Amino acid sequence: MAKNSLRIGILGASGYTGAELVRLLACHPQAEIALLTANRKAGARYADVFPHLAGLDLPDLTALDAVEWPGVELDVVFCALPHGTTQEVVAGLLHANRPDVLDEVMHESQGALAAAIPGAPRVIDLSADFRLFDTAAYAEWYGHAHQAPALQQEAVYGLTELAREAIKEARLVANPGCYPTCAILPLAPLLAAQQIEPADIIIDAKSGVTGAGRGAKEQNLFSEVSEGVHAYGVAQHRHMPEIEQVLSLAAGQQITVNFTPHLMPMSRGILSSIYVRMTPGVSADDLRQTLIERYADEPFVRVVARGVSPATRHVRGSNHCLVGVFADRVPGRAIILSVIDNLVKGASGQAVQNMNVMFGLEETSGLGQQPMFP
Amino acid sequence: MAKNSLRIGILGASGYTGAELVRLLACHPQAEIALLTANRKAGARYADVFPHLAGLDLPDLTALDAVEWPGVELDVVFCALPHGTTQEVVAGLLHANRPDVLDEVMHESQGALAAAIPGAPRVIDLSADFRLFDTAAYAEWYGHAHQAPALQQEAVYGLTELAREAIKEARLVANPGCYPTCAILPLAPLLAAQQIEPADIIIDAKSGVTGAGRGAKEQNLFSEVSEGVHAYGVAQHRHMPEIEQVLSLAAGQQITVNFTPHLMPMSRGILSSIYVRMTPGVSADDLRQTLIERYADEPFVRVVARGVSPATRHVRGSNHCLVGVFADRVPGRAIILSVIDNLVKGASGQAVQNMNVMFGLEETSGLGQQPMFP
Amino acid sequence: MAKNSLRIGILGASGYTGAELVRLLACHPQAEIALLTANRKAGARYADVFPHLAGLDLPDLTALDAVEWPGVELDVVFCALPHGTTQEVVAGLLHANRPDVLDEVMHESQGALAAAIPGAPRVIDLSADFRLFDTAAYAEWYGHAHQAPALQQEAVYGLTELAREAIKEARLVANPGCYPTCAILPLAPLLAAQQIEPADIIIDAKSGVTGAGRGAKEQNLFSEVSEGVHAYGVAQHRHMPEIEQVLSLAAGQQITVNFTPHLMPMSRGILSSIYVRMTPGVSADDLRQTLIERYADEPFVRVVARGVSPATRHVRGSNHCLVGVFADRVPGRAIILSVIDNLVKGASGQAVQNMNVMFGLEETSGLGQQPMFP
Amino acid sequence: MAKNSLRIGILGASGYTGAELVRLLACHPQAEIALLTANRKAGARYADVFPHLAGLDLPDLTALDAVEWPGVELDVVFCALPHGTTQEVVAGLLHANRPDVLDEVMHESQGALAAAIPGAPRVIDLSADFRLFDTAAYAEWYGHAHQAPALQQEAVYGLTELAREAIKEARLVANPGCYPTCAILPLAPLLAAQQIEPADIIIDAKSGVTGAGRGAKEQNLFSEVSEGVHAYGVAQHRHMPEIEQVLSLAAGQQITVNFTPHLMPMSRGILSSIYVRMTPGVSADDLRQTLIERYADEPFVRVVARGVSPATRHVRGSNHCLVGVFADRVPGRAIILSVIDNLVKGASGQAVQNMNVMFGLEETSGLGQQPMFP
Repeated sequence: MAKNSLRIGILGASGYTGAELVRLLACHPQAEIALLTANRKAGARYADVFPHLAGLDLPDLTALDAVEWPGVELDVVFCALPHGTTQEVVAGLLHANRPDVLDEVMHESQGALAAAIPGAPRVIDLSADFRLFDTAAYAEWYGHAHQAPALQQEAVYGLTELAREAIKEARLVANPGCYPTCAILPLAPLLAAQQIEPADIIIDAKSGVTGAGRGAKEQNLFSEVSEGVHAYGVAQHRHMPEIEQVLSLAAGQQITVNFTPHLMPMSRGILSSIYVRMTPGVSADDLRQTLIERYADEPFVRVVARGVSPATRHVRGSNHCLVGVFADRVPGRAIILSVIDNLVKGASGQAVQNMNVMFGLEETSGLGQQPMFP
Repeated sequence: MAKNSLRIGILGASGYTGAELVRLLACHPQAEIALLTANRKAGARYADVFPHLAGLDLPDLTALDAVEWPGVELDVVFCALPHGTTQEVVAGLLHANRPDVLDEVMHESQGALAAAIPGAPRVIDLSADFRLFDTAAYAEWYGHAHQAPALQQEAVYGLTELAREAIKEARLVANPGCYPTCAILPLAPLLAAQQIEPADIIIDAKSGVTGAGRGAKEQNLFSEVSEGVHAYGVAQHRHMPEIEQVLSLAAGQQITVNFTPHLMPMSRGILSSIYVRMTPGVSADDLRQTLIERYADEPFVRVVARGVSPATRHVRGSNHCLVGVFADRVPGRAIILSVIDNLVKGASGQAVQNMNVMFGLEETSGLGQQPMFP
Repeated sequence: MAKNSLRIGILGASGYTGAELVRLLACHPQAEIALLTANRKAGARYADVFPHLAGLDLPDLTALDAVEWPGVELDVVFCALPHGTTQEVVAGLLHANRPDVLDEVMHESQGALAAAIPGAPRVIDLSADFRLFDTAAYAEWYGHAHQAPALQQEAVYGLTELAREAIKEARLVANPGCYPTCAILPLAPLLAAQQIEPADIIIDAKSGVTGAGRGAKEQNLFSEVSEGVHAYGVAQHRHMPEIEQVLSLAAGQQITVNFTPHLMPMSRGILSSIYVRMTPGVSADDLRQTLIERYADEPFVRVVARGVSPATRHVRGSNHCLVGVFADRVPGRAIILSVIDNLVKGASGQAVQNMNVMFGLEETSGLGQQPMFP
Repeated sequence: MAKNSLRIGILGASGYTGAELVRLLACHPQAEIALLTANRKAGARYADVFPHLAGLDLPDLTALDAVEWPGVELDVVFCALPHGTTQEVVAGLLHANRPDVLDEVMHESQGALAAAIPGAPRVIDLSADFRLFDTAAYAEWYGHAHQAPALQQEAVYGLTELAREAIKEARLVANPGCYPTCAILPLAPLLAAQQIEPADIIIDAKSGVTGAGRGAKEQNLFSEVSEGVHAYGVAQHRHMPEIEQVLSLAAGQQITVNFTPHLMPMSRGILSSIYVRMTPGVSADDLRQTLIERYADEPFVRVVARGVSPATRHVRGSNHCLVGVFADRVPGRAIILSVIDNLVKGASGQAVQNMNVMFGLEETSGLGQQPMFP
């Protein structure tokens, strides 16, 4: 890299993932935040929206439409817009908002356009818009046809540990969902090793409330959420096809999983309690060994000591994923416990990790903060 | 009943289940609390130990050894002593602490002694000491031989809805554990109806911290528990054999379940997310219908409307159990969600319910308080 | 009372105070809930809005405009509508929604109309609309002239312990705010006894989040409120003039207090930490004695033992108010600690207490539930 | 500094302040943790005691008595031992545990010994043992005579912003208490400027539970603390004389304050709501201006914008102190709101800040992490 710093834009910076990007990038030695957008809060100082970051020197929030794209000269854009609104924006970004090119890309095949347009930043999209590469699956789960199908095909699903090489070259990274990251990291290697039965995977996931974003909804009020727990989106959650897409690839066959998310009275963290049936002759220790070997060189994924139960508290604020493996009393079954911070490894931290990979920086830059406990 | 009120003793009244018994009995029209024991706090006013109950007129705490048993003339004793210390105490209670009889009962067969001894109260034991009627299972899970095996055989496992008739006549009721109550209520009827596969039951349970009692332990400190979640006792929890014992009876065959408890950052409540495989030809709606019919006349168990996810908040402080049934996307599988308040239906409330049954009172007496939300 | 039960209406029943009224009245032996209104949720079953109360037999929610007033034949109406929308509604209720009378009352003096109109229910208003009897103060703090000034004068400020006699005869009770109830109960007797300096009263109040209602606002989201504390409405909160109005009456002079509310990461409860300067020669024990004597016969107000610090947990779910008094190390100063449950004694519980007083029922009816701890 | 890194020891490393030191020092470019002691957990891996720090390469825990002092060659020791046990340990450290010197220092005057002993590390003590320099006050509040009175006189009270120059040269820094740090930072400049009345200071403080440490005590259990608030140590807390000592110096006269701490259902953070009376002619804006000017060049203390209420969430995990100033409605009075993270600026963060000052490092080294919200 010739320049000292990357010039960075964050679209949709008034949500929790936006603030988390800012928090992490503030400790990144090669990051310069040059643009922050938020339509409803356009004109506001960032410190008014997130007072905990008032100590930083940041640009004011601006409306997305008010950005003069070629002029801002961004190297990379993090797109943290609501699901569904992102497709057109990303198509514009990747084509330098040149109408001639853009019209083409929205309607034609991708081939001729995949080359980088001068002046176009690379994009890391934190929404769900580019995660499903199956057009039919997208239409089924989101209720409408994808608006940028060529880009949908081109986008790299950015679970860093599984797609590092592709991420290096990607123009567009679809940053994975929080639940999928937590479930796929332990499951994909075990499916690839054919150590667990693809037809018998049950993922009981527990998430903090920040996973629902900062929107003002009755069901996320303190008085509705504290001192209790409940399942939601039972057999209907949109992270299910995302999990199945990646696990099917790992297994080499189509997989359907049980995925049941639960809302926890905590702000951050996901624990996936995963119940699997092992293939004949395989033991829980074999699963453990496979994961230890698979992630031996990874800075952010760690298999905990035998008998230790990973807790979301032990990854809070960090980009870590901890995994534990237990033999079940039911013969042939095992229990896998996986934890991440949904706002870090499940969103903004992995996005920064992907940025580091894309631009050839040290992969851990900006991600060296230890978990905060208590 | 000739008398207006039952004279009641609570042994081990300085714990949470003791306080909860007092809270509930304070609204019971036929209850008179005549004795409260707590060895370490003997001599203290109850209001000093539980200030929230200072408005009640209660006896001071006394040491268990200091009680002059025949004199107190109790009708019923709730035994909320720690697991393991209860066996000798209960044997004594049931035999009016007469050494001659007691010596016999601790060493001989039960037959001749099952008849009520004059002056002996009936006993509802909230510990785990009399829940397992299999002597070998008790020894395996608790690490020592049972000290009152005849009483172990005699004790009625007091899950009220499943054992009402036996409870009516029981001298000794083993009040069920919180996790077992929450899991067995939905599962037993489905196993009895042969609608689910006995070999494929996964119970992912989430509990509030009061389930761990009031003992001062590092792992239950606020700063250790808040803002996070983790599994504990994986594949080792002592409520597992209790669940398996009852479900095996219901199914007519030996059952082994996966049971994984999780500690939640909340004080009260248990949610059991239960993953089952249905027998051929059975649908989730069939499960639902079986449960609706089974519990149609029960005042405390209710199947919620289709699509509703039961929340622990919706039973807090009440003796209710709510159950929901969902079809899974994985063909042939279903998801059952069951919630209780661990201190009420999972402990003291069910104990009062059992007392009502034992003495021919209105079963809902003292249990009419609605859940408290928020 | 000739009838067995009061026929009760609750307007604005979809909020937390509405649900709390239903919870308490469900245990009231002389209460029949005949009407529940909520405009935005009109047509819904109450159980859909508050699943924890699904076990009760309740009327469906209806829109306020759809009520046929004479037909419903209510004895009493609890009005839990938003502040500002209540004045016209209450005027209508008290005059049986007869346009001829109503027009008069909204514009003329109160004298001729104070007599009960046949068919008109008595009203307990939980909003702030009728709490300030000073017209100018109302206009200053609420930004507009009162729309029913005659009723504003007629309304009885329903802090039960201070106004029991007037409440008995009232057509319209203005149920006190939560902060005022917690602060006034200890302060009014001390001012009346001239034991504390009226010019030096500092009330640092800490409230649970339910005080902000069930409206979907960003600042009340779980992720915004948990794990932290902050002051709000500093020197601007609308409960301040309400406190000052009542304390000024008690003191016989105009009082200005410092009142600083704080938002706590808890659902229920208010703790008022009150810092006072005593008049010459008065000790903290004197304050204590005055409060003990003043509230000796009150069922819901209790002065705790010397040295005990009242906790909001010890009144949760109950209509209790606990008060503690401590001498400060600064000579001549004392610290008064007062706790209530904001939804019970601070709102719905006191409203039921007032209903009991208005209709000559046992004052504690429906309010016998003990506090729930933990 | 010639060396690249400071060799650091942490005594009492198994508590929360110990873990927080490790978390912060892990991001410090010139820190090498060479020694971790914890008597009860001696021999354990640090990751077993604090799993969230398992990713770091740290020495195992050792018993304090087992340390071979000259050999470890430490530059600085953080002493996080329980209050009362520290005096002898610190005396030993500062004199290289040479019995000849040590015996002298424990009994003689300090003069001859103040010079650094070769091989002795400099000490930052996080306990309360050296904070009170008044021997009589120490004896009164702690119930026994100080065991190292010469060191008590020598120790520098390490509120960095107030004592930076003295800290640079100190052998022994008494790291301030959490409550005192939060209260003194805003109050000392205002007293020095004679803008507030020294006789009328009321500090209502709200603290997270980590302030009570990791000891297993019933009153700090999750179920005792969550969903509620209460005052404790009313008019008796040991941080009171510490506050008064420093404020008296600032004011140039003896000051007695009202200080009332409250336990909050949160892990981290302190909010001090401070009620003051201004001297004649002074306004709240004057107070604000004094604080802005006083802390203009400080990296960690910031006066927030007018009308903004500082929240503990906005400093969580950081070394920041935020201060807001409000005019009260009571003429002549003002409200000052001050927040810190009790484990960072209130303990370990300020300790690292002091280390940086003592060794001439960049003062913000290791303290650059932004607050974590939510």
